[in-house]
Amino acid sequence: MALIELRKPYLLFVGAAGSPLDAKTAAGVAYWRPENCRAQLRLSEKAVDLGFPDMTVKDAAAAGCTTFVMGLAPVGGKLPDSWISLCVEVLESGMDIASGLHARLAEVPAIAEAAERSGCRVFDVREPPPDLPCGTGRKRSGKRLLTVGTDCCVGKMFSALAIDAELRRRGVKSTFRATGQTGILIQGSGLAVDAVVSDFLSGAVEVLAPENEADHWDVIEGQGSLFHPAYAAVSLGLLHGAQADTLVLCHELGRTDIDGDYDDYPIPDLEEVIATNLTLARRTNRNATLAGFSVNSSNLGEAQAMAAMAELEDLHNVPVVDPVRTGVAKLVDNLK
Amino acid sequence: MALIELRKPYLLFVGAAGSPLDAKTAAGVAYWRPENCRAQLRLSEKAVDLGFPDMTVKDAAAAGCTTFVMGLAPVGGKLPDSWISLCVEVLESGMDIASGLHARLAEVPAIAEAAERSGCRVFDVREPPPDLPCGTGRKRSGKRLLTVGTDCCVGKMFSALAIDAELRRRGVKSTFRATGQTGILIQGSGLAVDAVVSDFLSGAVEVLAPENEADHWDVIEGQGSLFHPAYAAVSLGLLHGAQADTLVLCHELGRTDIDGDYDDYPIPDLEEVIATNLTLARRTNRNATLAGFSVNSSNLGEAQAMAAMAELEDLHNVPVVDPVRTGVAKLVDNLK
Repeated sequence: MALIELRKPYLLFVGAAGSPLDAKTAAGVAYWRPENCRAQLRLSEKAVDLGFPDMTVKDAAAAGCTTFVMGLAPVGGKLPDSWISLCVEVLESGMDIASGLHARLAEVPAIAEAAERSGCRVFDVREPPPDLPCGTGRKRSGKRLLTVGTDCCVGKMFSALAIDAELRRRGVKSTFRATGQTGILIQGSGLAVDAVVSDFLSGAVEVLAPENEADHWDVIEGQGSLFHPAYAAVSLGLLHGAQADTLVLCHELGRTDIDGDYDDYPIPDLEEVIATNLTLARRTNRNATLAGFSVNSSNLGEAQAMAAMAELEDLHNVPVVDPVRTGVAKLVDNLK
Repeated sequence: MALIELRKPYLLFVGAAGSPLDAKTAAGVAYWRPENCRAQLRLSEKAVDLGFPDMTVKDAAAAGCTTFVMGLAPVGGKLPDSWISLCVEVLESGMDIASGLHARLAEVPAIAEAAERSGCRVFDVREPPPDLPCGTGRKRSGKRLLTVGTDCCVGKMFSALAIDAELRRRGVKSTFRATGQTGILIQGSGLAVDAVVSDFLSGAVEVLAPENEADHWDVIEGQGSLFHPAYAAVSLGLLHGAQADTLVLCHELGRTDIDGDYDDYPIPDLEEVIATNLTLARRTNRNATLAGFSVNSSNLGEAQAMAAMAELEDLHNVPVVDPVRTGVAKLVDNLK
């Protein structure tokens, strides 16, 4: 079972994005894996500067870039002809393309033909590998941490990346296991679990985070929430397939309702979220624990945020961190 | 969003199956929906007799059969040439084909060409419809019952069919909603949820069991178990998408371990199964209840079975039935 494995270093495509938020995937790669980036390609001088040298495709190829990272959806959604020509030029220059777009670049005839001609590859990272197996539930060696959530978009990817970085900073063996397109482009490998056929979901996670050395951590990016009316199935497949030794609960302080167009779905009770996650996690790893909370407190002022975190800590008796505000050291101290 | 809708009546393909178990899909259609069957096609005189007139394809078409139901996998898995020729003959006779096989008949060139030529259709019922939406979680009218389980193969389909039949016998409006290939061939419509991409799972169930009259029951066929190491995601997508008013827990008396090649997975504690199903079901329907148990007691003698069922009833304070041994009337009495 071959997972995506991108060649490094990257040429980051910024397009004409005016802010890091508009180019958040490229900005994420630049923030978390600057060592994998060599250059940026901006279509306008006003586009956001991610801090790498501006290069044309030709110059980037000459400078040794091997993958062109396109994490940015075009305005309006439709791929403009000029982007298609750019992709053709990239492939003809000898670089691969890694795309996080919904539209599959490999299915655009001009791009497919250029890939064929050049021998370079187009990785649509939202596309899961074929022939995934069903889950086995068999115990495997190595340690695994999974970030779970009270909702979507509460920092499950960011927290996992921060915990992985802190573990490695301490000399602990650790690998970030990406489960969504942005995480996959950051890590250069991974598997988009929400695109996997339901029957193969826990099997896909077993493939993504396989057995490893006994003292090695896989830090697995969670998705959704067991209490999300649309995406809970993805979360449970992840929970069972991960056989996690420990869970980190991600939560946005002050959020009261499930994000998006859902009527009457309050953020679930934290005790219920913890109990249900642990009950189900223990089905495939009977020793699963809660390592702590990783919160997003960006809506609160400093004093308010620290007070709210202290209150959560008292209530649930586990470390509570905000990866941006406090870092994750206190949580990582608690990992065995 | 168009779900499969088979034309009736059927010509049931029995092949050379020597027992009802070898032809269990055709036998299931014959048992649950005899009014939809007009004839059977047996390849050998020794093949099991489902009680319908034996007809050739030509005779069946002349007798008004409109769909050829192929629920039987060929021995060895590979589709023999003689079956392909038979499918071509079926389509050329003016009948559709409904297949529950893993192999997609519509992708066999000779069959695809015959479908094109004849204007008849090939329904591979394991294939979900394209363009399923994500779940919305929005409340919808009508009543819904979902069968859930302690494992796979504990009678979730059989129980749902029996409950639907009992409701209709009493003059209550009810529709069986099939979620697997056998159920779909029995009902003539439905959606194979385990083949749906994870992100769209609860949305698929919202499509399968849409809003309905306030006094109409959808009796939805469950799949897997929240505690199954491979298939729990499917079960949770069903649970959330169903917005079930009530659950029926299906369980095989005397089964101690999860069926199949899973090490060290005992049948989960029933209290835990009930509590976890209700907690998660109440996320999309806060009034969800447990209607009762529907057990398979076929491994026990009569006295032992009745005693075990009485014990479960005392312990959990809900009706316990075995659809084969006792019928489901006592459980249906308990539906509001």
